[in-house]
Amino acid sequence: MNYQPTLSDFHFILHEVLQAPARLQVLPTFTEVDADLMRQVLDEAGKFVGEVIAPLSRTGDEVGCQFANGQVTTPPGFKEAYQAFWQAGWPALACAPEDGGQGLPGVLEAVLYEMLSAANHGWTMAPGLLHGAYECIKHHASDELKARYLEKVATGEWLATMCLTEPHAGSDLGLVRTRAVPQTDGSYHLSGTKIFISGAEHDLSDNIIHLVLARLPDAPPGPKGLSLFLAPKYMPNGARNPALCERIEEKMGLHGSATCVMRFDEATGWIVGTPGRGLNAMFVMMNAARLHVALQGIGLLDAAWQKAHAYAQERRQMRAPGRDKSSMEASLIIEHPAMRRILDTQRAWIDGGRVLAYTTALELDIIKHHPESEPRIRAERWCSLVTPVLKAAWTEQAFKGSSECMQVFGGHGYVREWGIEQIVRDSRVSMIYEGTNEIQAIDLLVRKVLPDGGAGLTTLLQELSDKLVGTDVAAETFKTQVTVLCALTGKLVQASALDQQLPYWVADDYLRAVAVTLLAWAWVQIRQTPTGDTSGPESARWQHPEAALQHWILPEFAMRVQIISARLP
Amino acid sequence: MNYQPTLSDFHFILHEVLQAPARLQVLPTFTEVDADLMRQVLDEAGKFVGEVIAPLSRTGDEVGCQFANGQVTTPPGFKEAYQAFWQAGWPALACAPEDGGQGLPGVLEAVLYEMLSAANHGWTMAPGLLHGAYECIKHHASDELKARYLEKVATGEWLATMCLTEPHAGSDLGLVRTRAVPQTDGSYHLSGTKIFISGAEHDLSDNIIHLVLARLPDAPPGPKGLSLFLAPKYMPNGARNPALCERIEEKMGLHGSATCVMRFDEATGWIVGTPGRGLNAMFVMMNAARLHVALQGIGLLDAAWQKAHAYAQERRQMRAPGRDKSSMEASLIIEHPAMRRILDTQRAWIDGGRVLAYTTALELDIIKHHPESEPRIRAERWCSLVTPVLKAAWTEQAFKGSSECMQVFGGHGYVREWGIEQIVRDSRVSMIYEGTNEIQAIDLLVRKVLPDGGAGLTTLLQELSDKLVGTDVAAETFKTQVTVLCALTGKLVQASALDQQLPYWVADDYLRAVAVTLLAWAWVQIRQTPTGDTSGPESARWQHPEAALQHWILPEFAMRVQIISARLP
Repeated sequence: MNYQPTLSDFHFILHEVLQAPARLQVLPTFTEVDADLMRQVLDEAGKFVGEVIAPLSRTGDEVGCQFANGQVTTPPGFKEAYQAFWQAGWPALACAPEDGGQGLPGVLEAVLYEMLSAANHGWTMAPGLLHGAYECIKHHASDELKARYLEKVATGEWLATMCLTEPHAGSDLGLVRTRAVPQTDGSYHLSGTKIFISGAEHDLSDNIIHLVLARLPDAPPGPKGLSLFLAPKYMPNGARNPALCERIEEKMGLHGSATCVMRFDEATGWIVGTPGRGLNAMFVMMNAARLHVALQGIGLLDAAWQKAHAYAQERRQMRAPGRDKSSMEASLIIEHPAMRRILDTQRAWIDGGRVLAYTTALELDIIKHHPESEPRIRAERWCSLVTPVLKAAWTEQAFKGSSECMQVFGGHGYVREWGIEQIVRDSRVSMIYEGTNEIQAIDLLVRKVLPDGGAGLTTLLQELSDKLVGTDVAAETFKTQVTVLCALTGKLVQASALDQQLPYWVADDYLRAVAVTLLAWAWVQIRQTPTGDTSGPESARWQHPEAALQHWILPEFAMRVQIISARLP
Repeated sequence: MNYQPTLSDFHFILHEVLQAPARLQVLPTFTEVDADLMRQVLDEAGKFVGEVIAPLSRTGDEVGCQFANGQVTTPPGFKEAYQAFWQAGWPALACAPEDGGQGLPGVLEAVLYEMLSAANHGWTMAPGLLHGAYECIKHHASDELKARYLEKVATGEWLATMCLTEPHAGSDLGLVRTRAVPQTDGSYHLSGTKIFISGAEHDLSDNIIHLVLARLPDAPPGPKGLSLFLAPKYMPNGARNPALCERIEEKMGLHGSATCVMRFDEATGWIVGTPGRGLNAMFVMMNAARLHVALQGIGLLDAAWQKAHAYAQERRQMRAPGRDKSSMEASLIIEHPAMRRILDTQRAWIDGGRVLAYTTALELDIIKHHPESEPRIRAERWCSLVTPVLKAAWTEQAFKGSSECMQVFGGHGYVREWGIEQIVRDSRVSMIYEGTNEIQAIDLLVRKVLPDGGAGLTTLLQELSDKLVGTDVAAETFKTQVTVLCALTGKLVQASALDQQLPYWVADDYLRAVAVTLLAWAWVQIRQTPTGDTSGPESARWQHPEAALQHWILPEFAMRVQIISARLP
């Protein structure tokens, strides 16, 4: 059974809960974007994903990418699917029309990538970096580079990579050693080894555009000495640039994506942006990139839920408690409380995660397109604070929750046949890349909350709390959590000024406390959505996961607060 | 880097903390078993495991078991290692001397199997079921069957399997359909399909002895209609018995062990025990089997910890908080709080788990060998209540904790090279087999705690609490937990009498609350162990994980209590 996007869920959250069209039409760029257009785009996306991309997931895992003689062969069907994908205009969805794009909001691209990741995480790695590369080239490259590469990357005719990590420089990019030596024609020769480069070699597109972090000869050590360069696989004259794939990694999962070791052997590149500002050029796309990893988590968890839910509605084992004892027939697995709990808990994370992730995507659209500065500043605050939380908590849940879904299958979950173990293996990488989840926690607390004395986060949460109408249990729970979290943040700010190590000890717990609080808020949004529809928040579809949230997820909040408080002086 | 047993740790817990030799010498069978003998056996075991078994783990995963023409070829080196293993007498360690065994306590076997699982989970699956089969044959088979098979199984010259699961009968063995038709010579013809049968076909031993759950023609439906049969791969006259391997499963991990689909095609078998009492014959070995799965969890987590700890002491990334800012050199990963936390937390589970698991193994020795009934009854109580907790909580921690250890490696953890991802994949199965962890939780609460009104568990915990001397924080924390847990148990007993579904909704949380409480007790045992040695409980080796327990593990207790309490009327 392959993943199939449940379009009614996407529409409900995007249009009913979040009122996305109304929020987008405020932006001059998107005055034409109405609910009908959004529905149409997502329906088409769902069709493409379900029919073309999802069926390739199993082969992608089992055959995987093959490496021989410096070349990577992608699994059967991957190339044809990619050609159909870019020719249908999907990579260009949220690129500007003047660059060959469709000029649609980023939030649609976000939903598209959630579906794609759910359907086939490995395949989706290939186009997954395109939009970031597009923004990077658009905002930092010279006109000459733009003329040569911007449209090719916008449309996805050529795929792109980010070459950051080196064997000794992972979380710590300041240690990067790849060297860039200026040439008389204004280009640079890049030399060094990059590792963990997704899709740096493959047969999906005619050319590959590498964005490479490297160090100029006179650069200082550390992160400030890094510059960014663009190096294509094939030069404008058709010659092969010596940006060479030495091997691909054997990994736990994600076999449909080639993870390359790249040797740059005096490869020709051109600088993108200012010397020494290479990290800045990449950091502008960091929120979007992290959001997309969070969406991978949400998508993969939905894929796992779909499989487990279908199995639990077919498989019978043992009599469920409360069932008539005279009946000899075993009950459906879904009737057993332990299984129901697993399924409903994942839905609470998935649906609540969507509310938060799509809100973040909308805020990114506002940052890009709102004419006034105040909404942009508020949007920046949201994205800066919420994105690391989404990335860490929802990728963790993807792994943990898909593993819980595996339990629904019993022994059948551990064998390949049902495909659930592939999701567990594939999802695991999302806790590591784009900044490990531990780095996200430090990013949230140490780099974002503490520096302004907690003002940003406190303001954000108080505003959410103040805006809530209604006094049901869920809303009250959220408001109480906000009060506790704001007070705790104040204490942490004070204590951290005296003890430099303290925030590093509690960063993970702090991120979890914020995640659970945001999840509570997301569910109040779902619950308070007025619909005349019987499929709305009062239906079992939405009531069950909300109950799971109250029973099994929100109690973590008090535990995290207790753990942090015990560390305070 | 391969796993190496840390013998000093085993000795400390077994001899210093648990005073195992003194407890064993009370038993007439083991009056000769002293600390020197135990040390000697474990040192030899450690040497064998480290030198012979651990180096085969990687190949076991990468080459795996191969199936062709009904036969299974085990990975290179597996057969030689197994021949050396049984010829050195290891499978016979805890079997009776009159059966060809060494007559040593089961607790030594328990430690041996923890080491073996840590070193090479896949290989260890082969001999892992031997002792259970030995006990089953010894206590239930006819003299004729014993004469033919007992010594072969005791010594491990022939390997054994348990054939329980069928495609439609997993957790629910009452649905088993395999049929046993009596023959005129007193044997039976077995026909049916069994799945998930570990090691039912291989090249490790000259014969394989299958213990098969099947149904006599006149048997009633459900679990009471099941009988147990012994069916060898090769008949006494050398003929091939039609107990045939149809294929082996492609799995997430554990590739070194063949998981077989078996077709019994009128295979000849002989009944073991009484007709209709097949499950009883198997249930006598259930506590031992579950304990061994818990030990797999502990072992695998230790193997993961060893890898992560070694890596964290070599790899440098970023400056740790509090370090001199003028230094340009990156800090060792182990100096970063987030990494220290991961490592110390796993050690808290490993070391505390050992205290509990070895205690359980000692109690199993007491059940078997104590001449008086009162100690046997107490031991039965411990094993019955603690074993499902150990199985569920420590296999979950093996998976979760080895995944956390993977975070220490960053991107390097996701690739095969370092071997950590293999542990994550291998360990996952332990949450499923030998009764899924959800079944363990139901076993604890619904089948064991509630039926006697909570008396057994309350008595066990109160005795542990009463016996504690000293009033340090750790001891007080444990005593408070016991009080809370006993009160909660009383309320659950009352409420469950009125609401049949209730215990099924809270079983998982209840098991976790008990697990965390037992872990707290285990660490008080470690802490209160008097040693003149600088490597004792006051050393950093033991202080760090105890601090991790207090900071990050015990807070879960209050959360679980909150979750359960919210369900109470």
